[in-house]
Amino acid sequence: MAHAYHLDDMNKLVSLAKRRGFVFPGSEIYGGFGNSWDYGPLGFLLKENIKAAWLRAMVQERDDVLPIETAIIMNPRVWVASGHVAGFTDPLVDCKNCKQRFRADQVSGGRCPECGGELTEPRQFNLMFKTYVGPVEEEAAIAYLRPETAQGMFVDFKAIVDTMRVKLPFGIAQIGKSFRNEITPGNFIFRTREFEQMEMEYFVRPGTDMEWFDYWVRQRYDWYVRYGIRTENLRLRQHEPSELAHYSRCTTDIEYRYPFGWGELEGIANRGDFDLRVHEEHSGEQLRYFDEETREHIRPYVIEPAAGATRSLLAFLLDAYDEERISEGGKEDVRTVLHLHPALAPYKAAVLPLLRNRPPLVDLAREVYTRLRRHFYVVYDETGAIGRRYRRQDEIGTPYCLTIDFQSLEDQTVTVRDRDTMEQVRVHIEELVPWLAGHVTG
Amino acid sequence: MAHAYHLDDMNKLVSLAKRRGFVFPGSEIYGGFGNSWDYGPLGFLLKENIKAAWLRAMVQERDDVLPIETAIIMNPRVWVASGHVAGFTDPLVDCKNCKQRFRADQVSGGRCPECGGELTEPRQFNLMFKTYVGPVEEEAAIAYLRPETAQGMFVDFKAIVDTMRVKLPFGIAQIGKSFRNEITPGNFIFRTREFEQMEMEYFVRPGTDMEWFDYWVRQRYDWYVRYGIRTENLRLRQHEPSELAHYSRCTTDIEYRYPFGWGELEGIANRGDFDLRVHEEHSGEQLRYFDEETREHIRPYVIEPAAGATRSLLAFLLDAYDEERISEGGKEDVRTVLHLHPALAPYKAAVLPLLRNRPPLVDLAREVYTRLRRHFYVVYDETGAIGRRYRRQDEIGTPYCLTIDFQSLEDQTVTVRDRDTMEQVRVHIEELVPWLAGHVTG
Repeated sequence: MAHAYHLDDMNKLVSLAKRRGFVFPGSEIYGGFGNSWDYGPLGFLLKENIKAAWLRAMVQERDDVLPIETAIIMNPRVWVASGHVAGFTDPLVDCKNCKQRFRADQVSGGRCPECGGELTEPRQFNLMFKTYVGPVEEEAAIAYLRPETAQGMFVDFKAIVDTMRVKLPFGIAQIGKSFRNEITPGNFIFRTREFEQMEMEYFVRPGTDMEWFDYWVRQRYDWYVRYGIRTENLRLRQHEPSELAHYSRCTTDIEYRYPFGWGELEGIANRGDFDLRVHEEHSGEQLRYFDEETREHIRPYVIEPAAGATRSLLAFLLDAYDEERISEGGKEDVRTVLHLHPALAPYKAAVLPLLRNRPPLVDLAREVYTRLRRHFYVVYDETGAIGRRYRRQDEIGTPYCLTIDFQSLEDQTVTVRDRDTMEQVRVHIEELVPWLAGHVTG
Repeated sequence: MAHAYHLDDMNKLVSLAKRRGFVFPGSEIYGGFGNSWDYGPLGFLLKENIKAAWLRAMVQERDDVLPIETAIIMNPRVWVASGHVAGFTDPLVDCKNCKQRFRADQVSGGRCPECGGELTEPRQFNLMFKTYVGPVEEEAAIAYLRPETAQGMFVDFKAIVDTMRVKLPFGIAQIGKSFRNEITPGNFIFRTREFEQMEMEYFVRPGTDMEWFDYWVRQRYDWYVRYGIRTENLRLRQHEPSELAHYSRCTTDIEYRYPFGWGELEGIANRGDFDLRVHEEHSGEQLRYFDEETREHIRPYVIEPAAGATRSLLAFLLDAYDEERISEGGKEDVRTVLHLHPALAPYKAAVLPLLRNRPPLVDLAREVYTRLRRHFYVVYDETGAIGRRYRRQDEIGTPYCLTIDFQSLEDQTVTVRDRDTMEQVRVHIEELVPWLAGHVTG
C-alpha cells in the first residue's frame, strides 16, 4: 500500500475511536474521571492482538523467555528496595495566592501560570498510588499499586531459577496493568494513570550486556516495523548520561512521531545488576544463577525492553489512519481507512450478503459467518449498499470483506475484497479458513 | 480416561503448583504478603487458555456478546450508585482486652477467640480498597479499586448502545482484575484480595429474564463440563430468598467440590433492572434501549454469569490432578498427572529427541520444535531417560509427547504418545501441525 498520510490532529483519532467502539472516555456518564479511558469491543480486540503479537515474538517463538504474572499489590518492601518509595517522585509547587498545584518543571518564570501569584519551593510528590491492606488504615498496612511490572520479575527471579531449569541468558516476561499518580495525564491514551505494560527482563552474563542491549534494541525496533509502523515515524534516541535513571547504565528509547511530536513508545535499558543487588540486600535472599561449568554463583546483568501496550495501541492506530480519495466500483469517493496489520486488526473479515432480502444469499452468508467465527473474530453486516458496508469496514481496519453474491449460490465461491488494494479475488467457501489463516497470521 | 481420584489435600496441589512453575507465593523473598500469589510460566499459560476458552464460548462463537475493558479505577460516584460505598461491608468486632480484630460472623460465643476478652459491638468495614488520585490526600480525591468488573458494563452500556448497533438481547463481557480487602483470605488461590474475573452482563426484555436466566445457568454449567470438570464435582445451588444480594431477584451458584468442601465457582444472577436504574438516577443519563418496532425506550433486565478466572484455574487444576499406578514401557510406576483438557494445557506438546548425544536426532528434534512453536506453545526436553521425561510432562499436563527416534530419521515420522491413554501412534512431521491443531482446539 502506498500510504503517506501522517495524522497530525489527535482529535480525528479520538473521534473515530469513540464513534467506532475502540476507546471510550472512562466513567463518561459521570462526567469522566481524570484522563481515564475504557476500551470498547474494537479496542479490546486490537489490544488483545497487540499483546498476542508481543507474546508471540518475545515468548512463544523463542527458547529462552518465560512468561509470568505477578500481583499488582506486592509486599511494600519491594518498593523500598527498588528505590520507588524514596525516589519515584515529581517536584510540585503551590501557588501561595490561588492555592493551585503545578509540576515544577512545567512552570516557567517562577510565577503561577493561572493568577501570576508567588510559588512555593518545589516539594517531592510520590507517583505511586497508595492503599491500605487489611481493616485498619495504619502505617503498617500501607501498600502500593505497582508503578511498573518489572519488579515482579526480579522478585520472582529466584522462584524461576529454582523451578524452571533455565540457562543464561534467559528472560522473564510480563504483560499487565501499572498505575502512576501522574499530575498531568493527557494526550488521549498517551499518558494515563492506569496503563498496560509489556516488559521483559533479559538476564545475561556481565560483560555480554552491551551486545545483548544492541540486540534487543534491534529486535524491538523490528517488531514495530513487522507489525506495520512506518520507519519514517520511528526513531531511536539514546539517553544522555544526565537523563539516565539511577538504575540504568544505558538507555535507548524507541520514539514514535505522535501528532504532538516525537515521544516514547518503548525504552530499552541496560539495568546492570542494580535490581538483583538491591533485592538481595533488602530481602537477605541470594539472587544468583549457578553456572554448572565454572561452578560460580553469578549475579546476572539485565537488559529490559519495556513497551507500553496502551501506547503501542495509540501508535498502531495513528500510523494506520488514512484518508484517501479512491475510485471503487466505478464511483469516486473519499474513505477513512485503518491500514492495520491483518494480525492486529480487530476483525479478520466481514461477511456480507449482497442483498438482505434474498433468503438464499442471507442463509449462505450466515453459514459462512458461523463457520469462520469458530476460527477468527469476524463480523456480519447486511445493512446498506455494499460500497457503504466496505467503507464501514475500512474505517475499523477489517482486512477482508467477503461478499456472498449470486455466483456464490452457483459455484460456492465468495468475493474477497482486499482493504488496502481494493482488489477482488474469488475464493471457494471450503478454502476460506486456510486462506484467511494464511493472510492474517503475524 | 477413567479418572476417579478426588484430591482432598490442598497441600499436594500447592506443592506441585510451586515446584512446577504454576503458582508461586507472592513477594516470597520478602516473606510473602497476605494471601498473595503470583503465576509462574505454567500458571500464566493455563490462565491465558482458560480466559481464551471463556472468550471463545462467550464472545467469539456468538453473535450477541461484545467484549470491553474498563478502568480498574473508575469515578467514585459509580460505587456510590451501585451501593458498594454504603453496603459492601463485613461486620467486624474488636477485643477490648487484646485489641485484635475479627469478622463478627467468625466469632462464636461473644468472647475473643485469642484471649477470651470482651468484644465490641460489630462495626461495618468496607471491603473496597481505597486510594487517592492526584497529589493531595483530600476527601475529594478518594477513589476505589473496583471490587467487581460488572459495573464497567453498566457504566459503558450507553456507549455500546450508541455505537455498536446492538439488538436486544445482547451481552457485554469483560475479563479483568478486581480487588477486595478481605479480612480472611485463604484456601490457596480460592479467596485472595486480588483476583481475576470473567463476567458478562446479558441485557434482555423484561418478562423474558427467567427464561434467559435458566439458559445461562445451563450454558455455564456445560462450559465447565466441556473443558473437563467432572459432573460429580459440580452442583447447582439456588440462593435462598434470605441470602440474595440486594440487587438480585434470583441467583444460582455453580459450586465445585474443593478439598475443603463445596464452594462457589461461578454465580449466575438475575439482577433485574437494578443497575441501569440506579446509574440512571445517579448520573442523570438515560440508560435505555430504543426498540425500533414498538418505538419504546426499554430499560432491559440483566442476567449476569460471573465466573472467577482465578477460581476456575484452581478447579481445573484440582479436577485434573491424579496419582496413578501405571505400567508403561514394560515398567511399573506411579505417576502424578494433570488430565487437563488439551485446549487448557499450558504446553500442547513436548518435543523429545530419544538420545541427546546423537546429533541427527537432536537436529531433527530442534527442527520439529522450531516448526511447531510458530503455532503452539511447546517445550523441548532432552534430559534424562524417556520414561522420566514422560513423567515430567504428565505432571504439568502436556497432552502429547513427540519422540524423535531412529525411525524418524528414516521415514520422517515421530512417535506421538497420548498423556491419558499412554498409547502411541506415529505421525509424519509434515502432518504434525494440522494433527495437533485438530487435537488441542477447544
